[in-house]
Amino acid sequence: MPEKNFVAVNYIDCKPEYRQRFEELFGSRAKQIDTMPGFVEMQVLRPTKEGDSYLIVSHWQDEESFKRWIKSEAFSEGHKRGFADMARAKAEGEEAPMKSDFKTYEVIAR
Amino acid sequence: MPEKNFVAVNYIDCKPEYRQRFEELFGSRAKQIDTMPGFVEMQVLRPTKEGDSYLIVSHWQDEESFKRWIKSEAFSEGHKRGFADMARAKAEGEEAPMKSDFKTYEVIAR
Repeated sequence: MPEKNFVAVNYIDCKPEYRQRFEELFGSRAKQIDTMPGFVEMQVLRPTKEGDSYLIVSHWQDEESFKRWIKSEAFSEGHKRGFADMARAKAEGEEAPMKSDFKTYEVIAR
Repeated sequence: MPEKNFVAVNYIDCKPEYRQRFEELFGSRAKQIDTMPGFVEMQVLRPTKEGDSYLIVSHWQDEESFKRWIKSEAFSEGHKRGFADMARAKAEGEEAPMKSDFKTYEVIAR
């Protein structure tokens, strides 16, 4: 496996009624991210404690590879079902079904 | 590599003056955790943004393996330098140099 030096974590807070849909979206994900140069692996983490955030963790060879992914057409393609859910809620005047917060990290020890 | 089904994340907030020491402790870690059955791998993640938490991420074959680690003698042995730093600060009436918050997760997609 290639070296994993950079990690991006997307912290997701889902409304309770959206959790099943959220898990289904990732369970049937488009695997667009897997096509990106410098991508190593990812995990979707469901909290064991009610109320904690889900974590989408992606491992990259370097920060540049991650930045290319965020700006890529594949990123839009890979997220289109989730983004459409968000847009529909907004159009209907509802609260967003999930909120996300991206944080990034360097791997300094293993 | 064995299957990684369970993840523990320790969110660490360090006082600025303790960061170097904290990184050194993990850079020279005792590798006690590596001896535990069911342990797969770990990473120490330094936030790219000032003020965000460090993440200690450990990957396990299952939750039981993680629980055995927490209760083990190896856990005490592996953390003794950090635990001593905390005890010294307390004994001197100072604020703890770091705060930690353990959260655990199931891997539901890759």
